[in-house]
Amino acid sequence: MLKQVIIVRLDLEMGKGKLAAQVAHASVEGFYRVLNKNKDKALEWLKTGAKKIVLKVQTETELLKIYEDAYKAGLEAVIIRDSGLTQLIPGTITAICIGPESEEILDKITGHLKLL
Amino acid sequence: MLKQVIIVRLDLEMGKGKLAAQVAHASVEGFYRVLNKNKDKALEWLKTGAKKIVLKVQTETELLKIYEDAYKAGLEAVIIRDSGLTQLIPGTITAICIGPESEEILDKITGHLKLL
Repeated sequence: MLKQVIIVRLDLEMGKGKLAAQVAHASVEGFYRVLNKNKDKALEWLKTGAKKIVLKVQTETELLKIYEDAYKAGLEAVIIRDSGLTQLIPGTITAICIGPESEEILDKITGHLKLL
Repeated sequence: MLKQVIIVRLDLEMGKGKLAAQVAHASVEGFYRVLNKNKDKALEWLKTGAKKIVLKVQTETELLKIYEDAYKAGLEAVIIRDSGLTQLIPGTITAICIGPESEEILDKITGHLKLL
């Protein structure tokens, strides 16, 4: 089973609409990245329900550590920065997305994190 | 300026992770739909910041009324149903996405709704 894992920072105390928009940014960017690199995988994910898991961390440092782990493991991952028109300083890192990728592979990197 | 409008039901009382995942489902599906129908528009939206606005309604009836308005106006819109593995009954309509489309056109349909 393929899934996306989207991880968001809770320390920024974003409102729930802002938070949802950051998760959506991450999901779309992650999907488009894999669509360009491995179209079959991206479309298989979409056709099998486009499973998404949203997890949380408390700091930017934690978030970037997981991004680094994903990168080192050869996984497709994207970093989302807020455009800063509301609530946050421009360029603030809010979320990352890893995948779509197989659950087994993703769980090795993010299995220890808690659901949002 | 192109944007996506994503509208979610508040009456389902989804947790914030669940809510964010529904918004992401809607955004990805809406993007992919427009990518297939009008690739230039979808990519222009992506390259200009992939603006997303998340709005709220209180009922399924309200949500479907807006979907119908968008459909009648010839806009690309998608309905998101939850797979029902957690929290909700399978097939529950949770959200819709309209666009990417120009702000002026979208605001005629959704300008009266409140931000999530």
